[in-house]
Formats: sequence, C-alpha cells, structure tokens
Amino acid sequence: MSIVMSVNAGSSSLKFQVFKMPEEEVLAQGNVERIGLKDSIFGMKVNGEKFETVQDIEDHAQAVEHLINALIEHKVVNSLDDIKAIGHRMVHAGEYYAKSVPASQDVVDKMEECSELAPLHNPAGLTGYFSFKKALPNCSHTFVFDTAFHQSMPEENYIYPIPYEYYTKDKIRRYGMHGTSHMYLTYRLAEILNKPVEEMNIITCHLGNGASITAVKNGKSFKTSMGFTPLSGIMMGTRSGDIDPAIVIYLQKKYGYTPDEVDNILNKKSGMLGISGISSDGRDVEKAADEGNERAILTQKMYVSRIVETVSGYYGLMGGADAIVFAGGIGENDWKMRKKICDGLKVFGVDVPVELNEGIRGKEAKLSSDASKMQVWLIPTNEELMIARDAYKDLVNNA
Amino acid sequence: MSIVMSVNAGSSSLKFQVFKMPEEEVLAQGNVERIGLKDSIFGMKVNGEKFETVQDIEDHAQAVEHLINALIEHKVVNSLDDIKAIGHRMVHAGEYYAKSVPASQDVVDKMEECSELAPLHNPAGLTGYFSFKKALPNCSHTFVFDTAFHQSMPEENYIYPIPYEYYTKDKIRRYGMHGTSHMYLTYRLAEILNKPVEEMNIITCHLGNGASITAVKNGKSFKTSMGFTPLSGIMMGTRSGDIDPAIVIYLQKKYGYTPDEVDNILNKKSGMLGISGISSDGRDVEKAADEGNERAILTQKMYVSRIVETVSGYYGLMGGADAIVFAGGIGENDWKMRKKICDGLKVFGVDVPVELNEGIRGKEAKLSSDASKMQVWLIPTNEELMIARDAYKDLVNNA
Repeated sequence: MSIVMSVNAGSSSLKFQVFKMPEEEVLAQGNVERIGLKDSIFGMKVNGEKFETVQDIEDHAQAVEHLINALIEHKVVNSLDDIKAIGHRMVHAGEYYAKSVPASQDVVDKMEECSELAPLHNPAGLTGYFSFKKALPNCSHTFVFDTAFHQSMPEENYIYPIPYEYYTKDKIRRYGMHGTSHMYLTYRLAEILNKPVEEMNIITCHLGNGASITAVKNGKSFKTSMGFTPLSGIMMGTRSGDIDPAIVIYLQKKYGYTPDEVDNILNKKSGMLGISGISSDGRDVEKAADEGNERAILTQKMYVSRIVETVSGYYGLMGGADAIVFAGGIGENDWKMRKKICDGLKVFGVDVPVELNEGIRGKEAKLSSDASKMQVWLIPTNEELMIARDAYKDLVNNA
Repeated sequence: MSIVMSVNAGSSSLKFQVFKMPEEEVLAQGNVERIGLKDSIFGMKVNGEKFETVQDIEDHAQAVEHLINALIEHKVVNSLDDIKAIGHRMVHAGEYYAKSVPASQDVVDKMEECSELAPLHNPAGLTGYFSFKKALPNCSHTFVFDTAFHQSMPEENYIYPIPYEYYTKDKIRRYGMHGTSHMYLTYRLAEILNKPVEEMNIITCHLGNGASITAVKNGKSFKTSMGFTPLSGIMMGTRSGDIDPAIVIYLQKKYGYTPDEVDNILNKKSGMLGISGISSDGRDVEKAADEGNERAILTQKMYVSRIVETVSGYYGLMGGADAIVFAGGIGENDWKMRKKICDGLKVFGVDVPVELNEGIRGKEAKLSSDASKMQVWLIPTNEELMIARDAYKDLVNNA
C-alpha cells in the first residue's frame, strides 16, 4: 500500500486528491483557492466529512505546508514520509512527451520552454511542483500532461493549412487538451467492455465549461477538436470555438481592438454566454430555454448543431466508430442535452431510449439500447485517478 | 428568342457570356483583363474561334464599349438593341436578398451598404453594372448574388458563438459564397434524376482555387463551409480555411503583424501553397506528390482529410444525404483527388469504382456504382447559365 497524490496547480489554486494505491481508494480530496489573495480558502473532504478554513495563504509553498499539516491533523497520513508519490498535472508539453514522465530538471526545462504555448498554465504547474518538491524531497514526482494523449494524431490532422514554417519555427499546430480525460474515458470503456484498448474506435465528448471531442482510433487520439489553444473546436461556456478567422481581423479593424482584447472576447465573452446573454452555465441556459427565451433556445440549438457536426465528422474521418462517451459537467449531468445530441445522430443508428438516459447523472451508465448501432456511454471522467496511476507506476518502476 | 448576357465584373476584369435564351445556347464568351492597366487584354470565343486583342482599356466603361463593338463585329448581335437582358454577378447581398432581383436604385443602395462585407467585390460588381446600364439603358438588368442561395440556412447554422450583438449590430454571421454554383449543381442534379428539387438532400463540393462545400437539405442550403468571409471552411489553393482563431492573435503578438498582414498570410500564402511550398495549384502539388515530395503528399492528405470531415459532418447534420456532387477546377478534373475523397467516405457506403471515375474530366458523369449508398456525381458547374436564366426570367416577367 502506498499513498499517492494527484495535484493540479493553477495560478491561484491547488487542487489535490490523496489515493491509496494500487487500491485506487480516495482517502482525501480538496482545494486551496485564492492563493496570494486575502482570505484564501482551504477546503478538504475526508471520509465524507468536509472541512474549510479561511486565512491568508501567501503562495503555493504555504498552501502545500497547510495542506500537508491538514492531512496529518486529519490522520490521512501519519507523517510526510507516508506520501510516496505525487503526480502533477501539467498542461502543455508541446511535442516533447506523448506520455507521463518522472520529473527531472530536463523536464522542467522543457516545460519552461513550452510556457509560451500555455503562458498561464505551465508556470502555475511548475510552481506547484517546486513547492511540493521542496516540502517532500524524497517523494517520487511525475509529470502528467494534458497534451500527451493527443501526440498520436497523424500529421494531416495536426498541421494547419498555413505557411509550413509556422509549424517548424513557431510550433503552431493542433495539440489538443483534456488528454488525460479522453485517455481515461478510452481506457475505462475498454475495461467495461472487456476489450483491448487497441480495438477502441470511439468518440469521446468531454463537455464541461471547457469542452473538447476526440476521435479515438485503435485506442489512440486520431483527431481532437481543441487545437493550438483551448479556444478552438466546439462552442463552450464562454469560448467561441472555431469561427471564420477573418472575424478576428474584422473586429480589430472595425473597433481598433488589440489582439488581447479580441482574445478576451473570444475566450471570456463568447460561447453560451455570448449568445444567450444570460450565463455561461448550461443549466441557466436550459432553464431560460424551457421558459421560452429565444436566445437561450438558439444557444442550445447551436451547441447541439456543432457537437453533432463534429461527432459526425470524426465518424467519417475514422471510418466509423463503435461508441460515443459523454463526460464533463454537461456530459455527465445534462441528460436533456445528451438526448438532443443523440437525436441528432440517429442517422448513424444511435438509439438512446428515454428510460436509459432520463435523469441519469454522474455515474457510469450505458445509455443506448442493445439495438443501437453505436453504443452510447456516460462515464464520469477521472483525471485525478489517471494522474495518480501514472505517479504510482513511476514509483513502482523506480523502487 | 432573346439574347441574354451574364456578366462577372472584377476590379480589373470583366467576364461575360452571351446566351440565346430560352435555348440556353452559348453564342459567345470572353474576358477583359487588366482593365485600367497598360496592355489590357480582350479575349473572346465565338463559334469555337478565339480572338484576342491587346490595347489599353482605361476603365469598365471602355471595356463594355469594346465588348459590344466586338459582339457586333463578329455578328453575335446585329445591334446594341439585340441584347435584351443582362445578369450581373454580385458577391454580397448581406441578408437582403435570398434570390436574384431586378436592378434598381434601391438594390444598388443595398449593395453599397454591403460593400463593407465584400470591400473588393461589391464595388467592382456595381462598376460593371453602371457601365452596362449606361451603354444599354433599355436592357433589363438583374442582380444575381453569390450569397442568396445560402440565406435559407437555419439560425443555428449561421450565427457564430461570439457575443450576439456582433450579429445584430455588425452583421457578422455565416453568409457563405459560391451560392450560384451550389444552386446550379442542386437544380441540375434534380433535373438529371428527374426528382423535385425539394427532395434533394445532397452535399455539393465546389472545389476550385476557392472552395466550399454545402449541405443541401430539401433543395435548400442548410449549412455551407464558407462563413462570414470566403477565408473560412476547408483549405484551399492559398487560403487556410478554418483554423484556431487564437493563431491570428498569436502571430500578431509574436511578429507584430497588423490585421491586414495576417489577413494576407491566411488568404494568399496559406492552403496548398503554404503547406507544399510549391504551388497553390492542385496539379503542381499532385505532380510533386507523385514524385515523392513529402510536403506535397502531406498537402494532399490534409486536403482530403478536411473534405472528408466536412462532408461527414454535413451528412450527420442533415440526417443523411442521397448524393455528393463534385464541381470546380479540382472537382471536375482531378479524378485522383476525387478517388481519395470517395475512399475516405466508404463508411457511408460510397462506392466509386475505378472504371467510372478514372480519367473523367469536365463532363457530367455518375461516378458511383449502382450499389453505392450515396450517388456520386461530377457536374461541371455553370454559374453563367444560372445568371442568364435569372436575367431571362426577369425579362419575361416584365415583358
């Protein structure tokens, strides 16, 4: 038995889960929010009990200290030394890593090099790592990358049709995101169906506030809707997804917007929020749509249309698919939205009867009938477990 | 019998065809190039014979004069008065017109208003109209719009997921282009199959240097790959098509490009040219690919991948399709490219045997076997005829 943590460090936050491995049992989970701000919040759940404290936490190092003390205090661990391995979620590994790797100075250097591609996320991830590394120097550290799973895409699916030197010189290409989630969904479905991962030809829909869809061919990412950045692909809570790139230029010329201003509009004010004018949260939009709000109804129709088109496009691109998996906040909880999407895919023989879908939330479930030509599954995603597994694997390998 | 002309005026060019209507017989066709430059070229074909003269032509008015004199000289018409109707190709009608309309001051005003959306094309189209109107004041003039056919798209397929006020205030939406071509292909296939247009559920692929794909549902445009501008959609000869919009922003920030500079890169230096580094012409790329050039091979793979994904996406979005139509320079002539695309669509039961496709160029042909679940057709597009038909219709209606 080993205690393994998964850590996801943001610029002012630190999410964590503590696992007993290889049993994959969650011992504790929590979050530090508002790091570096007044009244930072530390929240933790142990054995179903929730704890919360509010006090100023200056930086990630203090957050880590706080967190470890809390784990000892609540008897999740007896001492620092009990924590044997930590998996750190890192966003962007460029083209360097197609799977998780043990942390090292070389990996840190490469992460810093890739910071240009993820200017908010990579530095935050590294700050988290440095803080834990200092507090737990004897622990095994593993980096788990959001981009890694998508490194298997064939060239024609990741190169953009712009001058080729922007790829060779500037590394502009499709990278994709949510890789750990899409990978988890793929491996979990293979496990459920008792099939080798190499036989998985499926389409995974991670539909949260950020959202991406992946065509998984022979168990590997073949194409994914997020691209060079997480702005692209399907419409999201506040992000536009793909639009005519000339719109960026038109808005700049018409309104004198700077690049950052347009970036802000497309990332923060678009998507469900931009169309509905109500909220970036699908639940608020649904409520308004049910009450007859026309812009909310349009928002839902657009959301469905773009997902149906993307799933259909990937179906063709892969030469067919055996299953669709829904995950993420919307995918796991919004059964009405799932119904609309599945209704839009009937031409592929998708059959999701009301009784298998209605009201199903946040648990593994097969949503399609036995007659359905593609299986449809709901699988709550579990990036934390994926991260803990990779951290544990490194621990065992290096033992 | 009436003589009807179709006219396509660019900023320095004037293409025309002269038809005998309603017989739809082409009496003459030609082009004036380099208008306003030294050594303008006037070319015309009458009864299979070609004529060309080179002399300075100052403006569109002179070009029209030249053209009419040539028609009289070559006995295509006896006098000016023989030309009864002219259809003018106009690019952008915004949301004003869903079909062709007789020219009037009101229509001209609306075209001028829409010039912001097509700053190169609309003024050129109007210049052509004014020149002909002055030379042939008694003739019937009709405006035929590239955007008209796509006005039938449902809201969810033309609104972009950006703040809604950019649609209401700035008219930013998907308009689509090549409408006259997609409409011609739809109507022509209905005629060939002897089916009512309302029963046409097809996907039309206009693949030229500019290229767009349209989902035609019940005979109407349901979604099309070009958007707010002709930059978007699939990759083209020199245009990128859809890319992560954040790339525009990234390039500006990294290189200090102005909006116009990025616009130029994405419109003029991308697509087949940008990836292959060889040419924007599919024939040159194919030659290099056949010789083993890796970037040319990649270019072809990307081109096919994006078309297969788009066609598949539209197939799903429409809930199936009965036929695919190829047109445009590549669609009509490049049978190897058509084969690659059709091979990529086998999952939909597309069956295009070698003997029905190989070497077929520039003529109407059914390319699919009788067993194919979707029919595949090659139909040389004929925008000029479509324009002449609409011009003739107005002539008859107002007689």
